[in-house]
Amino acid sequence: MTTATYTVKGMTCGHCVSSVKEEVGGIPGVSGVQVDLGTGLVTVESETPVDAALIRSAVAEAGYEVADPS
Amino acid sequence: MTTATYTVKGMTCGHCVSSVKEEVGGIPGVSGVQVDLGTGLVTVESETPVDAALIRSAVAEAGYEVADPS
Repeated sequence: MTTATYTVKGMTCGHCVSSVKEEVGGIPGVSGVQVDLGTGLVTVESETPVDAALIRSAVAEAGYEVADPS
Repeated sequence: MTTATYTVKGMTCGHCVSSVKEEVGGIPGVSGVQVDLGTGLVTVESETPVDAALIRSAVAEAGYEVADPS
């Protein structure tokens, strides 16, 4: 089991959280997604590491953006 | 055709707008619903006037609240 965290910009409500969970959760290999609306922190659980590009793409599909690492 | 306007509090994004449109649009007699996210203004069109209590109830069902007239 591996865990990766991303900061997602632009989520404003529970509907936004649901959209991100649905898209990221649909990536093959992803077994769990937690989202903290207040901080924008998205935690992705998977058996083996998932390509960050796939995560960014799924977040974009939901209508949001992964913040660049600071 | 009659038109009534309400101010709805708590909508933050397009998903919120969709939820309100769906619930208010489902009230019998309602033929159209416009929502302005910036102002919270919800415009309800119907053939005959719709009981304001039904509108408030539908908005609450969507997870939001109609502001009291000021």
